[in-house]
Amino acid sequence: MAEFAFIEWLRARTPTHQRVLIGPGDDTAVVAWPTPAPMLITTDMLLEGSCFLLAEAGPRRVGRKAMSVNLSDMAAMAGVPVAAVVSVGLPRSAGRELAEELYLGLREVGDAFQTPIVGGDTNSWDGPLSISVTLIGEATPQGAVPRSGAKVGDWVMVTGALGGSILGHHLDFVPRVREALQLHAFAPIHAMIDISDGLAADLNHILVASGCGAVLTASRIPIADAARQLSQQSGKSPLQHALRDGDDIELIVVVAPESFARLLAEQPVSGIVMYHIGECVASGLWLEDDQGRQPLPPAGYVHWLG
Amino acid sequence: MAEFAFIEWLRARTPTHQRVLIGPGDDTAVVAWPTPAPMLITTDMLLEGSCFLLAEAGPRRVGRKAMSVNLSDMAAMAGVPVAAVVSVGLPRSAGRELAEELYLGLREVGDAFQTPIVGGDTNSWDGPLSISVTLIGEATPQGAVPRSGAKVGDWVMVTGALGGSILGHHLDFVPRVREALQLHAFAPIHAMIDISDGLAADLNHILVASGCGAVLTASRIPIADAARQLSQQSGKSPLQHALRDGDDIELIVVVAPESFARLLAEQPVSGIVMYHIGECVASGLWLEDDQGRQPLPPAGYVHWLG
Repeated sequence: MAEFAFIEWLRARTPTHQRVLIGPGDDTAVVAWPTPAPMLITTDMLLEGSCFLLAEAGPRRVGRKAMSVNLSDMAAMAGVPVAAVVSVGLPRSAGRELAEELYLGLREVGDAFQTPIVGGDTNSWDGPLSISVTLIGEATPQGAVPRSGAKVGDWVMVTGALGGSILGHHLDFVPRVREALQLHAFAPIHAMIDISDGLAADLNHILVASGCGAVLTASRIPIADAARQLSQQSGKSPLQHALRDGDDIELIVVVAPESFARLLAEQPVSGIVMYHIGECVASGLWLEDDQGRQPLPPAGYVHWLG
Repeated sequence: MAEFAFIEWLRARTPTHQRVLIGPGDDTAVVAWPTPAPMLITTDMLLEGSCFLLAEAGPRRVGRKAMSVNLSDMAAMAGVPVAAVVSVGLPRSAGRELAEELYLGLREVGDAFQTPIVGGDTNSWDGPLSISVTLIGEATPQGAVPRSGAKVGDWVMVTGALGGSILGHHLDFVPRVREALQLHAFAPIHAMIDISDGLAADLNHILVASGCGAVLTASRIPIADAARQLSQQSGKSPLQHALRDGDDIELIVVVAPESFARLLAEQPVSGIVMYHIGECVASGLWLEDDQGRQPLPPAGYVHWLG
């Protein structure tokens, strides 16, 4: 971290956190690990022109997104975020303001989730803006939730409406960290993933890892207003946007039916609506509507900005 | 980590490590943390055209350097590396071979230091190659070594000859992980840093953090052959290269004089020569030669490729 040009600036602005023993500013940061809980680690890189348009988003929202996508990956395992490190390649032509706005965005989201930035590496270069965040967290006593635990008969849920995130949601979403922890404390989650490639593609990741299939009910899939709006320009249906669009950053949650009944009855998660959109079956990925059941191709992520 | 295109490829090639419970391939990797030892975390980003010239270095050496600079930051705290995550922005025009060679380089060095790659995020974009590695490690029972522990009267040592690293050493160095652990187990290290900005600049980081000064003895500073070679083109003296050049990636080690005497007598670290180059004093940074003692400006890192 020796080239961290903003280390003094950052140190003055990073809240103290009782577990951060050294950081930011030494060669490595030191974080207390007093419990035997496993450590969770995730990393995500955002690249200008591919993951965001800097002129459209502005640096503060890019900073917010860079922290939020990592928090969402932590949420997808039902992990408790502990600390983050950030490495940045700044366009040489950009001023100090770009870096400061970027860090303010990172910090706003980090603060909201008690996640101090404990170290980093800031560089200038002739390329576009490149930012990589790595987040560490801790598993709860209920354990980390993998993608691989879905079972035939389980119910498939999502934590919010889907589609059209390119119209703004992909920059301004709130990662479902608290909701995932509340859910997992209430009833064991069998499998979970956050939607970055699209509902069909990410559900398929769960199915491949778990060795089962799923049927989605078309009429139950919650469609975001943005998906309807985008549909008017794109020629695709709002449902297609909900099934295919990337960067919704909601969670796909797979639980046993009896857990779901309790969830519905007791509503342990405040502030969000959980949608029941399908069930796990022996194999395949299917979409069911009034016409019957059709195969749903698990289309991959489309680089919609690139 | 949802966009990790090489996840299958990487998973097939990543050695099992008994502490890696999940990874690579889920949203976050899970690493067992069975001891109460603090967790160390460090991150370093390498950028094409600034930290390396891709055509000169080749992708495998870039991968090696990306892992090695992080291991060196871990060494500087006397930490034991545990696992790494890697995020990469690949030039869209480059083929799959670039990514594979990059990962082979990362893996070669990771394997040599029992550090599995447990996760990552691979993206393509229109920018140049950007690679960020984050390394986690564990403190030993002797504790992590900060920059801030140097005391007046301590001796200043370096772990190898300095200067001229641009001629090749900056790509091919071996991080001093084992040596730092051997040293710290043998005698308490008061302060340590790896040389990335240059001897004078990085020693100054220790002095600022510790609130003391140091005198270096010019005749004791070990000068690399590359510094002499570079001197013939640059018009600077070999000593100036040893004092100023970045990316030597040797360690500056500060210990009590009595520890140093034992080190000299017992030579607990195999394979390297430790050089005694100066002492800590109350304040200032000084260079002593036959002409007497002059102030040594703590010149900062120069982006020598940019």
